[in-house]
Amino acid sequence: MLTTRIVLAQRPHGEPTSQDLPLESAQLPDPTPGQALLETLYLSLDPYMRGRMSDAKSYAAPVEIGQTMVGGTVSRVLQCPGYEFALGDIVLGYGGWQTHSVEQVSGLRHLDLEAAPVSTALGVLGMPGFTAYSGLLTIGKPQPGETVVVAAATGPVGSAVGQIARLKGARAVGIAGGPEKVAILQDLGFDAGIDRRSDDFRARLAEATPDGIDVYFENVGGAVFDAVLPRLNSFARMPVCGLVSDYNTTSLPKGPDRLGLLMRQILSKSLAVRGFIQTEFVEAQFADFQRDMSGWIADGSVGYLEDVVDGLDQAVEAFRGLLRGDNVGKLLIRVSG
Amino acid sequence: MLTTRIVLAQRPHGEPTSQDLPLESAQLPDPTPGQALLETLYLSLDPYMRGRMSDAKSYAAPVEIGQTMVGGTVSRVLQCPGYEFALGDIVLGYGGWQTHSVEQVSGLRHLDLEAAPVSTALGVLGMPGFTAYSGLLTIGKPQPGETVVVAAATGPVGSAVGQIARLKGARAVGIAGGPEKVAILQDLGFDAGIDRRSDDFRARLAEATPDGIDVYFENVGGAVFDAVLPRLNSFARMPVCGLVSDYNTTSLPKGPDRLGLLMRQILSKSLAVRGFIQTEFVEAQFADFQRDMSGWIADGSVGYLEDVVDGLDQAVEAFRGLLRGDNVGKLLIRVSG
Repeated sequence: MLTTRIVLAQRPHGEPTSQDLPLESAQLPDPTPGQALLETLYLSLDPYMRGRMSDAKSYAAPVEIGQTMVGGTVSRVLQCPGYEFALGDIVLGYGGWQTHSVEQVSGLRHLDLEAAPVSTALGVLGMPGFTAYSGLLTIGKPQPGETVVVAAATGPVGSAVGQIARLKGARAVGIAGGPEKVAILQDLGFDAGIDRRSDDFRARLAEATPDGIDVYFENVGGAVFDAVLPRLNSFARMPVCGLVSDYNTTSLPKGPDRLGLLMRQILSKSLAVRGFIQTEFVEAQFADFQRDMSGWIADGSVGYLEDVVDGLDQAVEAFRGLLRGDNVGKLLIRVSG
Repeated sequence: MLTTRIVLAQRPHGEPTSQDLPLESAQLPDPTPGQALLETLYLSLDPYMRGRMSDAKSYAAPVEIGQTMVGGTVSRVLQCPGYEFALGDIVLGYGGWQTHSVEQVSGLRHLDLEAAPVSTALGVLGMPGFTAYSGLLTIGKPQPGETVVVAAATGPVGSAVGQIARLKGARAVGIAGGPEKVAILQDLGFDAGIDRRSDDFRARLAEATPDGIDVYFENVGGAVFDAVLPRLNSFARMPVCGLVSDYNTTSLPKGPDRLGLLMRQILSKSLAVRGFIQTEFVEAQFADFQRDMSGWIADGSVGYLEDVVDGLDQAVEAFRGLLRGDNVGKLLIRVSG
């Protein structure tokens, strides 16, 4: 079977380009027992992928030059010699940026077509939703009446963070880029939405957080963090799951050096800053997450947004937009079907 | 009763001077019922006091201009109109930088002369020891076989951190300034001691931490932290109780700006960075601490060092030395007796 795929031809310097990530055709091997041949329906595009394109030390090994870019996928089973899945079954896997894949069946999860749209397995009911759930509840620990702030708040992580915070009785303040996204935050039930691009961003953040900030769920970094830091309350918690504003930077910004200033804030306010990857919590919490989040979606207490782009050939441009914050909701490439 | 005291005449810019902290005489009021008149035996000098001299926002209110500098004290009871204490009783209080004080008896703790030298109530059995105990066990959570690194390691916090880490089965690496202090670390049972002033400090740190660093107990900041950061393991914990290398700085250092670099380390290694002040843990843990630490001292498994300077008129110079790391062990001013 031929697959059309996007490979990492060279490591991007700054913003990834189609020279870094060209499209090509390749022959897939036939699946052996214990494997399945799959047709990709949806490819998930997520900020963490920028890290995999780089060879800087990180929590996961980089994609090697010449290899297919990795990524979560929802796919249809075309062949399954061991009969673990039926032909036509829809599965969650990690097929990467390609139209077809051969994967180990042990890495696939069967999706129930009745339960929810299958694309949600890559978003609100998948890795991004679980990132929000596990990081907010385990590290952020929002208490009733506290103020939770999250940026990229219309994204799949941020929108879940804000809505779960509200379900726990906290005040949810979302930060997003542009008035359209701020309007969406109101629809999602955030207590306040702030446009990070507005001239008076800091003043608006102060207005929206009159009692300071108790939990800042960090997924963007940069100017948003700079505005949040002085408003953190004593004993504030900061789960750190991403720094997307930073992923394309190629050198340290000029001074002064504020590393010591951050440490002094951590000391003087007894802050808890904790980096995490959701995989750390899967074993202990994923089942709870699926139960809770499915229930919240079913009863309407959590809404979600998807930004679906058609065609694998659009993936690089869509991914560049993701790092700029152009997407509205979970960014998916509809590869087939 | 006349007291001789050191007041905060003006806020220091950089290193405190005797112009900032002059000695003067003052008349104390007579104690009323519920108060006691005390003669100071020992005054504790601690790095946190530099923060109280400044009006920058911090976890505690600054000392006001014209007020006596605050500080923990061990004192003898001279008068106690409510008879809560007997004349001659030795008490732990917060009398500040002066020869005599009038304090509320509710803030005083009677010291048992048989149990331990009374000066230890300001050191290994007091606030510094409890800072080490609570921060290391609650935030650092050293596991058997892990590597714990602490700087200012002959100081009252650092020496307790290293020795408690060893009692918990961890490898203890101490950092101190100068070969004399490094030799003391060996006497205290540290697995390795490193001179932060040595030219090959980073190489020695690497050699002493072949499996990386799992817990860095942060009390100094600056160049030591810069060397530690790249050696932290995934899921490392960093209790932050002080940044003494930084306390006299008057402006941010020049660039590049490494704030984002620190955040990326926190993210990519799932680090836990937590500022704390020991008061947070007093209610839950102080009784356990006293029981454990008294036992460890009695059976010889924890040793401690005191650096006693005679005379209140030496306090400012001794405090300047403390911020430079000149002291060896817990710095105390013997005020009387």
